[in-house]
Amino acid sequence: MEVSWEASVADSINTVYLLFSAYLVFVMQLGFAMLCAGSVRAKNAMNIMLTNVVDAVVGSISYYLFGFAFAFGEGSHSNPFIGTYFFALKDIPNSTYDYSYFLYQWAFAIAVAGITSGSIAERTQFSAYLVFSFFLTGFVYPIVAHWVWSSSGWLSPSSSDLLFGSGAIDFAGSGVVHLVGGIAGFWGSFIEGPRAGRFDAFGKAVPMRGHNATLVVLGTFLLWFGWFGFNPGSFDKILVSYPTASNQGNWTAIGRTAVTTTLAGSTAGLVTLFGRRLLVGHWDALDVCNGLLGGFVAITSGCSVVEPWAAIICGFVSAWVLIGLNIAALKLKFDDPLEATQLHGGCGAWGLIFTGLFAKEEFVIQAYDSGESGVSRPYGLFMGGGWALLGAQVVEVLAIVGWVSVTMGPLFYALHKLNILRISVDEEMAGLDISSHGGYAYTGHHAEESRPRFYTDYMRLQDQS
Amino acid sequence: MEVSWEASVADSINTVYLLFSAYLVFVMQLGFAMLCAGSVRAKNAMNIMLTNVVDAVVGSISYYLFGFAFAFGEGSHSNPFIGTYFFALKDIPNSTYDYSYFLYQWAFAIAVAGITSGSIAERTQFSAYLVFSFFLTGFVYPIVAHWVWSSSGWLSPSSSDLLFGSGAIDFAGSGVVHLVGGIAGFWGSFIEGPRAGRFDAFGKAVPMRGHNATLVVLGTFLLWFGWFGFNPGSFDKILVSYPTASNQGNWTAIGRTAVTTTLAGSTAGLVTLFGRRLLVGHWDALDVCNGLLGGFVAITSGCSVVEPWAAIICGFVSAWVLIGLNIAALKLKFDDPLEATQLHGGCGAWGLIFTGLFAKEEFVIQAYDSGESGVSRPYGLFMGGGWALLGAQVVEVLAIVGWVSVTMGPLFYALHKLNILRISVDEEMAGLDISSHGGYAYTGHHAEESRPRFYTDYMRLQDQS
Amino acid sequence: MEVSWEASVADSINTVYLLFSAYLVFVMQLGFAMLCAGSVRAKNAMNIMLTNVVDAVVGSISYYLFGFAFAFGEGSHSNPFIGTYFFALKDIPNSTYDYSYFLYQWAFAIAVAGITSGSIAERTQFSAYLVFSFFLTGFVYPIVAHWVWSSSGWLSPSSSDLLFGSGAIDFAGSGVVHLVGGIAGFWGSFIEGPRAGRFDAFGKAVPMRGHNATLVVLGTFLLWFGWFGFNPGSFDKILVSYPTASNQGNWTAIGRTAVTTTLAGSTAGLVTLFGRRLLVGHWDALDVCNGLLGGFVAITSGCSVVEPWAAIICGFVSAWVLIGLNIAALKLKFDDPLEATQLHGGCGAWGLIFTGLFAKEEFVIQAYDSGESGVSRPYGLFMGGGWALLGAQVVEVLAIVGWVSVTMGPLFYALHKLNILRISVDEEMAGLDISSHGGYAYTGHHAEESRPRFYTDYMRLQDQS
Repeated sequence: MEVSWEASVADSINTVYLLFSAYLVFVMQLGFAMLCAGSVRAKNAMNIMLTNVVDAVVGSISYYLFGFAFAFGEGSHSNPFIGTYFFALKDIPNSTYDYSYFLYQWAFAIAVAGITSGSIAERTQFSAYLVFSFFLTGFVYPIVAHWVWSSSGWLSPSSSDLLFGSGAIDFAGSGVVHLVGGIAGFWGSFIEGPRAGRFDAFGKAVPMRGHNATLVVLGTFLLWFGWFGFNPGSFDKILVSYPTASNQGNWTAIGRTAVTTTLAGSTAGLVTLFGRRLLVGHWDALDVCNGLLGGFVAITSGCSVVEPWAAIICGFVSAWVLIGLNIAALKLKFDDPLEATQLHGGCGAWGLIFTGLFAKEEFVIQAYDSGESGVSRPYGLFMGGGWALLGAQVVEVLAIVGWVSVTMGPLFYALHKLNILRISVDEEMAGLDISSHGGYAYTGHHAEESRPRFYTDYMRLQDQS
Repeated sequence: MEVSWEASVADSINTVYLLFSAYLVFVMQLGFAMLCAGSVRAKNAMNIMLTNVVDAVVGSISYYLFGFAFAFGEGSHSNPFIGTYFFALKDIPNSTYDYSYFLYQWAFAIAVAGITSGSIAERTQFSAYLVFSFFLTGFVYPIVAHWVWSSSGWLSPSSSDLLFGSGAIDFAGSGVVHLVGGIAGFWGSFIEGPRAGRFDAFGKAVPMRGHNATLVVLGTFLLWFGWFGFNPGSFDKILVSYPTASNQGNWTAIGRTAVTTTLAGSTAGLVTLFGRRLLVGHWDALDVCNGLLGGFVAITSGCSVVEPWAAIICGFVSAWVLIGLNIAALKLKFDDPLEATQLHGGCGAWGLIFTGLFAKEEFVIQAYDSGESGVSRPYGLFMGGGWALLGAQVVEVLAIVGWVSVTMGPLFYALHKLNILRISVDEEMAGLDISSHGGYAYTGHHAEESRPRFYTDYMRLQDQS
Repeated sequence: MEVSWEASVADSINTVYLLFSAYLVFVMQLGFAMLCAGSVRAKNAMNIMLTNVVDAVVGSISYYLFGFAFAFGEGSHSNPFIGTYFFALKDIPNSTYDYSYFLYQWAFAIAVAGITSGSIAERTQFSAYLVFSFFLTGFVYPIVAHWVWSSSGWLSPSSSDLLFGSGAIDFAGSGVVHLVGGIAGFWGSFIEGPRAGRFDAFGKAVPMRGHNATLVVLGTFLLWFGWFGFNPGSFDKILVSYPTASNQGNWTAIGRTAVTTTLAGSTAGLVTLFGRRLLVGHWDALDVCNGLLGGFVAITSGCSVVEPWAAIICGFVSAWVLIGLNIAALKLKFDDPLEATQLHGGCGAWGLIFTGLFAKEEFVIQAYDSGESGVSRPYGLFMGGGWALLGAQVVEVLAIVGWVSVTMGPLFYALHKLNILRISVDEEMAGLDISSHGGYAYTGHHAEESRPRFYTDYMRLQDQS
């Protein structure tokens, strides 16, 4: 029974670690909701929050029915492109792919749709959300997760047949989660076009400030909090010792991962603060929040395999990636209300490249071979590890951009052609809350009775005036 | 010393698990505060938040002095109706009923008063809150907890003398917490009557929208987050292995419990979204939030003993229970500003019945007999487990409704007769914040000096106009 | 390998415990941001939130580069006044001072600047924040942490050369964190002087209500949540058994610490509720929040070494300390918008004294000698433990007040003389958000275009009117 007791202890510790990490990742859904709500105009606050809630509930059902199976459903007939077992958790074993693992992956899955929701905010029909959210969480995202995170995936760094002898290192998903969400958002936003009034007759951008900076800061801090589950939590198990290093194991790597995450985000926030100060002339809290998040997105891929000093480089560059892409978006009249394409797409892609440059051999072996001795594998180009890893990282970027484009692009286009994607201009001017959700998010003092409650009331009032 | 080291490891793991679960349950108090604040009118926001803070601080003291002793104070003279040891934590041993367990139970206890506070919002004197909160947290609720959760309780599923050979299964408290809070809220709300203006001269309901939907969504997500402590955390210990299943133990059951909780809530939210869309014609974020919470309330009883597919049924039905009771409440001119009676009372009762129908034998034995072999006990009627469990569940519903009615009913009635329950109509129109709490919750730009700060100022301004 | 497995288990459990505690402490940064935002006027909300975000990002970098080294950088040439190793985490070993420990201490460090930010809110130039935040987090605070929490510190209760044979007991930092932040805030606030209009021509205080009570309550609950990481988390390791007590170890002491923390805060909140009701005539939610926080600040020093009943005394007194200091501040025309000097400074100092009076011998030996047998050391005066501990506590108070005064006082004075501390009266009347941060935190319905977005617009509008 001694062995069994040891297994019980290991399972208990690892379950506590994985479950509480999952709970933290879940908090990111709340963080997104608050960030998005604060970043849109008051008249659309209810709408964007509802989409975040719906991402979670629709995502739960579609990920339970299909998504988890497509991503991690491995069995006797595994293949490198798609999983095929465990639909509706049928026959799931309790030993490896147990319920805790499902819950952890579920929390990731619902985050993807949350990212994309931001890109198409303030002008999208609610039923379109229901469709893309179900499709993205249940099918598009899980396929990518299978490629990179399932041991039979063709991009996996732990399969038996490694791409370029390396596989791609996307530890917590700069690519799998953020780039996927960002590219999906790009197509949605591109096909819908800018919000009414976003660019004036001369093509000049008109500021459309979010209605509540407090919510933006609240959301940002909650996302930071959740990222401690996202990045360090991706080790899944904490009780794994490394044979070659005395007193080391996943527990030491996990602590280091939390530190690299913190440093990358902080650096990116600080650089954005000063960079934007130089560019726009004032200290902007919202810029700092987005910069901070860009740093987190970028470090998510390499968080477990780089030194803290490298994390600072990662954050420094990601701040300029975000600033540069935001300037480009304005020039190109691309309107993504949450900057999700630039932030999750751009910094996500940079994160994958960064890992190909700075991954340290010792840490790669710790994260992917449990620190075994005698293992040799490609690592960061700048660390002397050759081009193989960087090549695999580039392939992951291209594969994700391609796959999401050929799935989500046509989907959004079809919704557009069927006239169920974008709302009418009238509704857009009135705001989604009054036109689709039965009233505004806010009701002030003494104003309860006089506000129009339904769109029909609103239109009648318009007619009278 | 080997044995002692094993005990140390087990105690450490279990303490980490229980304490962090307790912290999550505590977050629900914040969730309630935000949900309640957002659901009332701006003029009462300060009041409702203060009641939530006070539920926590008054509850801490009364649960420390009396409540925990009444609930779990077992010793040489235990009895099935009330605990009698550990007043003010006196002589509490560190091995079984230790401080972490107290903290976990404390977090549950303060939640009950939070539920009831919602029912009587926007029209209740503050001193009445102090009285009922102290009484409910210190006496009424702990007695029910003793019945069901203490090993000597007459309804307990783990006592030596099981009711109907089964005992009631109320794993995390659909009945003990939510039904108790909901029934207490029913009596408070019923005795006070509807808010002024809630129903017009023809008996038609006048909408009284909450003032801030963002807070409602914030509160709902925080409650979801907290429920991960509430339901899976109710195993108390994670390091308990099951002898009959290889590699299984509480750690596997805990993961499954988190999954059933998530699925029930998500299903209920989704069904409410579409159900209400059909009924009222728009997509309402607030309905989805309440539907989601109703699903969580319902699964709280059976979360550890049902399959994930059954959790989906649980959530589906609970959505319609809530929708139906809300329609009934309108017809009966019953005004519960937070729908707490319908949500926590109605879905709580449904949750107990659901468990009597769908509890699976294997999981019941895991949760209540540590998965021992050779054990046989009643389980869900639809699963072939006979009528005994369902009978015990019905008895729990009746016992709770009876007990809370004969204690909280007279209390609210006495407060009513003494004129210390409801505020005056003048105060109600002005709002509780200005009449009782020294000012509004919000102060806008440039408006700092011109607002009336005290009720006397307010009344003077009224006289002038 | 058996021994090694035991070490792995211990490291894993302790890392889970320490990291998740660190995450909770990090939440306090969010709590401060929300508390501060709600407590200032709407026109300065963006500013105060940005300072909280910047405290975190600047603090991350300065604590990484210098702070941690000054505080905990011990090696072959340790000295009692300042640490000298591990700058930029160079050569940090993974066994003792590993990354998780860094992260835990980092979360504490950024909290200090958050406290001070409150004292100088609504009238300080943003660049001054950057300077003091870098200096306080990177130098002033770490020195104090070294004195008390590093084993070579001259005030440490676990060094080889104990002050008065006792050392000061400041378990989680009533002094190291809160008194430091409060005294720094005092000098900033004192040198800047009151906000414009805070006292009228006759010296009478003019109320300047915060703009959003919901945020205050949100922040307070988040701080409470975070305090569960701050106080119980300060044990660092949970898997430490006590040889003299059967089945006891850090896990039991940790549960008790969570309970004393809860009881002290709750008592202080409750006493403040009734105390302020008597003094000002209404029930004030904001007073209760501050009272609650004062109780937490006070118990932070002794949380691990006192009985629950003593925690109630601690909270009772701290409520009156805060009430008394607030009255004194009004009389002296001292204006600290967040009451941070009174709350963190006053209750922090009281907490240190309280520990000198009520620390229990058994618990002191548990917390500082792992419950070893045959150890004898000074403890609380009222518990019969003599004057040595109380003396050391008084020395800590004096040393902190002196050190922070001779460092932060001159810094703020120099900033003042260089005219980079306080903003102009014009800017103060307009509000910091419009003058320094590019716009208000809030944008209402339909008001997006008509609001002045930049200070220059604002001034132009002023000229026109």
